[in-house]
Amino acid sequence: MTKPLRFSANINTFNACADRYVLSGYGERLTTDQLIAAATKVPGLTGVELVGMWHVNDGNVSQIHRQVTDAGFEVTCVTPDIWASAKWGWGSFAANDPKIRQEAIHEVKKSMEWAKQLGCEVVDLWFGQDGYDYPFQADYQAGWDRIIEGTIACAEHVPDVKIVLEYKPKEPRTHCFISTVGKTLLLIQRVNRSNVGAMVDIGHALMAYENVAESAALLHYFGDKLMYMHFNDNWRLWDDDMTVGSVHTIEMLELLYWLDRLNYTGWYALDIFPYREDGIRAASESIKWIQGLHGLLDKIGRDRIAEVIAGGDAMTASAMLREALLG
Amino acid sequence: MTKPLRFSANINTFNACADRYVLSGYGERLTTDQLIAAATKVPGLTGVELVGMWHVNDGNVSQIHRQVTDAGFEVTCVTPDIWASAKWGWGSFAANDPKIRQEAIHEVKKSMEWAKQLGCEVVDLWFGQDGYDYPFQADYQAGWDRIIEGTIACAEHVPDVKIVLEYKPKEPRTHCFISTVGKTLLLIQRVNRSNVGAMVDIGHALMAYENVAESAALLHYFGDKLMYMHFNDNWRLWDDDMTVGSVHTIEMLELLYWLDRLNYTGWYALDIFPYREDGIRAASESIKWIQGLHGLLDKIGRDRIAEVIAGGDAMTASAMLREALLG
Amino acid sequence: MTKPLRFSANINTFNACADRYVLSGYGERLTTDQLIAAATKVPGLTGVELVGMWHVNDGNVSQIHRQVTDAGFEVTCVTPDIWASAKWGWGSFAANDPKIRQEAIHEVKKSMEWAKQLGCEVVDLWFGQDGYDYPFQADYQAGWDRIIEGTIACAEHVPDVKIVLEYKPKEPRTHCFISTVGKTLLLIQRVNRSNVGAMVDIGHALMAYENVAESAALLHYFGDKLMYMHFNDNWRLWDDDMTVGSVHTIEMLELLYWLDRLNYTGWYALDIFPYREDGIRAASESIKWIQGLHGLLDKIGRDRIAEVIAGGDAMTASAMLREALLG
Amino acid sequence: MTKPLRFSANINTFNACADRYVLSGYGERLTTDQLIAAATKVPGLTGVELVGMWHVNDGNVSQIHRQVTDAGFEVTCVTPDIWASAKWGWGSFAANDPKIRQEAIHEVKKSMEWAKQLGCEVVDLWFGQDGYDYPFQADYQAGWDRIIEGTIACAEHVPDVKIVLEYKPKEPRTHCFISTVGKTLLLIQRVNRSNVGAMVDIGHALMAYENVAESAALLHYFGDKLMYMHFNDNWRLWDDDMTVGSVHTIEMLELLYWLDRLNYTGWYALDIFPYREDGIRAASESIKWIQGLHGLLDKIGRDRIAEVIAGGDAMTASAMLREALLG
Repeated sequence: MTKPLRFSANINTFNACADRYVLSGYGERLTTDQLIAAATKVPGLTGVELVGMWHVNDGNVSQIHRQVTDAGFEVTCVTPDIWASAKWGWGSFAANDPKIRQEAIHEVKKSMEWAKQLGCEVVDLWFGQDGYDYPFQADYQAGWDRIIEGTIACAEHVPDVKIVLEYKPKEPRTHCFISTVGKTLLLIQRVNRSNVGAMVDIGHALMAYENVAESAALLHYFGDKLMYMHFNDNWRLWDDDMTVGSVHTIEMLELLYWLDRLNYTGWYALDIFPYREDGIRAASESIKWIQGLHGLLDKIGRDRIAEVIAGGDAMTASAMLREALLG
Repeated sequence: MTKPLRFSANINTFNACADRYVLSGYGERLTTDQLIAAATKVPGLTGVELVGMWHVNDGNVSQIHRQVTDAGFEVTCVTPDIWASAKWGWGSFAANDPKIRQEAIHEVKKSMEWAKQLGCEVVDLWFGQDGYDYPFQADYQAGWDRIIEGTIACAEHVPDVKIVLEYKPKEPRTHCFISTVGKTLLLIQRVNRSNVGAMVDIGHALMAYENVAESAALLHYFGDKLMYMHFNDNWRLWDDDMTVGSVHTIEMLELLYWLDRLNYTGWYALDIFPYREDGIRAASESIKWIQGLHGLLDKIGRDRIAEVIAGGDAMTASAMLREALLG
Repeated sequence: MTKPLRFSANINTFNACADRYVLSGYGERLTTDQLIAAATKVPGLTGVELVGMWHVNDGNVSQIHRQVTDAGFEVTCVTPDIWASAKWGWGSFAANDPKIRQEAIHEVKKSMEWAKQLGCEVVDLWFGQDGYDYPFQADYQAGWDRIIEGTIACAEHVPDVKIVLEYKPKEPRTHCFISTVGKTLLLIQRVNRSNVGAMVDIGHALMAYENVAESAALLHYFGDKLMYMHFNDNWRLWDDDMTVGSVHTIEMLELLYWLDRLNYTGWYALDIFPYREDGIRAASESIKWIQGLHGLLDKIGRDRIAEVIAGGDAMTASAMLREALLG
Repeated sequence: MTKPLRFSANINTFNACADRYVLSGYGERLTTDQLIAAATKVPGLTGVELVGMWHVNDGNVSQIHRQVTDAGFEVTCVTPDIWASAKWGWGSFAANDPKIRQEAIHEVKKSMEWAKQLGCEVVDLWFGQDGYDYPFQADYQAGWDRIIEGTIACAEHVPDVKIVLEYKPKEPRTHCFISTVGKTLLLIQRVNRSNVGAMVDIGHALMAYENVAESAALLHYFGDKLMYMHFNDNWRLWDDDMTVGSVHTIEMLELLYWLDRLNYTGWYALDIFPYREDGIRAASESIKWIQGLHGLLDKIGRDRIAEVIAGGDAMTASAMLREALLG
């Protein structure tokens, strides 16, 4: 019998989403209070993610803790903002400017402290601005030196908070340094601190032509380093941040199977951008899709799935999935 | 009540599939007799496609007709081979060499004649070798001139056999001239013969970042020109020619809905390359997936689907699909 | 002897560029006055593009005309804004809401009027919001009906201003209706007004796996419909809007060759997003790359290029390009 | 002053190339003697690659050695064939069948022995068949166990021959296990034998959305593991195996710069498939492009390039490249 899955969402899910054309966003901008209130309307949601400085800071951390707890949530992740203002445009940990690097490290350390105060185990370290846009623009080796050094400094700052690396091939830079599951594990191994691991953001993996189940398995294989999960979906070529279940049914099912097989007991956190959709409905739909697909695994039977995989016969797998989905 | 779907497959589905590394193929090479015998083992299959000169020629057309009929099949398509030997390497209809162009046109005309003798309505015109590999290698306008001229010549040769254009972005050339649904319709309009239309090969559309349902709708929109369908699946970036249902569940469902809505009554033909799989099982699985997904549309209700589409609300669509697939 | 090329740029090139993470932009926000002043610092720039309502409106059209003229520029294009606020989120011409459709058509008509008053021949019609994000969300045929109808209404409104369609596969929607050069020509043919044509935006073509030279040739082939050009570059998978020359050298050269061969005498307009770069330098670099590559064509000789293309031999083409670029 | 580059090519470059449509190949099939004779006609070529069992075996190794030496070549790489017949279809080192795994390991060991006898330092280990095609078909962790185990067994067999891993995202499987530079380094680190490193095959890196210069730098960064290079080019989405210089000018230049900067002194080996081109001309062109681009680096000046990279300013880089290429 598998345990019930635990669902989380960044409270920003419920805010107006913007893109580079509609900078003011497609919906209404809400306050943090309103965002938390919105989260309570999503059936099954018991966790929330916060962004450092956007939602939590030195001045409001106890109040936010109380507010989130009163609303019935755990804080599952604090994400330091080292990517959402112009100052990070040429990098955070890997910036050429040492002052920027120090400020970025400082932001992450602060988020780790806030996480601890919020009873939250995880900080999400996403190097979205660390990379390059043009050829002949980056010293690839210096970039890695700096990212390794900064990550170690953070890891040692609050050893009982996990730093969870979130890889992504591109955007906002045309090339990010920490772009694939393989590079993420190389970084983890070089950093070599027990509180440093990774997540799979499904959309990021898909756009890297990774199979999400395989990427999760690999993070487990190399030292049990799968510490968090970001759920969403896309059309495979860009980080569309769509709701779960909208495009990839079978691969999502395979991922959910492997998460159980790998004894993943962390949060199933949503990372969606419902640009034109209502955030509450988008989050609710995503959770229901995950629950429904997860339930299908029970219906098929984990032992049977394991047997089919061990056999390696694609048509047996096809028949198993077809019967489960279409009866 | 929708009519039962009619399924076909190229008899080569049951032959050894080869790729550029394993040129001798992953399975056993069979004779035409054996291929037809294999086809009879696929439940639900009532049509077969033949390739000109591979399976049918002037000498054996009546015998093949009898053989196919005796086996319980209709011939649904004859595909002229204007792409599978070195002589076509620099193009067929669009080749620089006028002799090659004439030979290619001759091949298509012969296939049209055989189609007629076989009681078959459709000839598949795929310009896989007409394009280019390198920059500065092609005169794009001359290519179109020649393709238009050759297609008209064929269309007029046997006016009661349909020429069905099969577009594909690339392979074997790195760039094919007739690469997308849009260019296919431009060609159809310029050729302007009532027996010239198109098919959607699902994998070719996916690799062009087309939505297959949308492409089918467009072929219908511009003059009711959807005349045939090739079913398969892939990982969206290459023509993997996998079995139906293996990757894209929702998009396949949307396609099946639109085919009915567009009153498509043509064949549901499989075009798969089961490299390492048994062809009979691969074809059977594909048909069962199509049937299962098609049945789901009845379960949801066509009117409800039409209403959801008209509403344009993605989350309502998501809920509808989720309930249908996961209960 | 070819005529000197004429260069233009949207004055927004010189403004702060934002993306969905850094909504406030990477640089400084400037006024229209400042943007025009910035444009004067770009060597070789003699045209500017304006966006309707952003830079030009009923109240300021004469003043802007004078200001632009005094600065030494022609207005080469007015782009109606039917994509940059939340109201357009579910479409402009193709929106389900007839009121939105009317407002979008009104915006385009106003831009056409302003264009005429500004002595500008071209209005850029980009249907970025007309498409869909999710499966089962769009009525593909109704979308085309509405786009055709709206485009005709605009074309007839000011017949001596050209409507130039700008296709793009995706973004901001995950799927845009008018996504490829082929679909654009289908729309042009159905609309069938002499003042309706198209541009190639290089980045949009690249992300559709089009060869830009081929797309330009095709627009010319089907009725001389290439009326404008947007220059930029990208990594082929996304509309990175980089400076010209940054990634694709050979294909840019082939495009420039074909533009001359097709007797394209329109503007060479930049459409770049220099997120982290200085806009003046980014525009200047782009122009110098185009000029340099264009000069290379003279060095090689147009007759020789024509001969190489007619021969269709890739290695002869390779040698020609290598000698021209590397001596 | 940089040392002259050393060029190699697989002798199969000069043979007929086939694809999955034209299985008999676009050109003429030659004997090993003829292939070696063809290689002598390529200016600048001083090395050749051989494929185990195709060109070299226990019976002919001394004779081939003499023949190659007499023709003026060194053998730069022996590639074991563990991917080109049906028996490897379900994997080599990672196959479910232990007998196949043993046979694959045996093939690699034999190629290592032949390499040693041929005075060749490198064996190319490409796991093209080790992966999967369909969802729910593979045990991702068992695959890695087996690949690690087999690679160690080979590495210890002939410790003074280098095993050079060649990663590739896909083809012939839709997903290969050893697919990216990151995963390759993980494998190298786990195997942990000094004679195990990697190559970058340019086309494989491009289709993984890797920047080839960055991938080379990373292999150097993690333990000086860049041991070989395969040169070719493609359109970024598939392993088109085109001649060097045909599409990507700037990225090729950046790679050549970094190879020098990383003190790479290994072979510059061609891995091209000139399907429709003459192999001798295709190889000659590729070498001339590499030489020409490499010479351009001298013209620009390595110190200046290093300074530009350290500055991180894309427009300075653009100007530097533009002036070098276009004067």
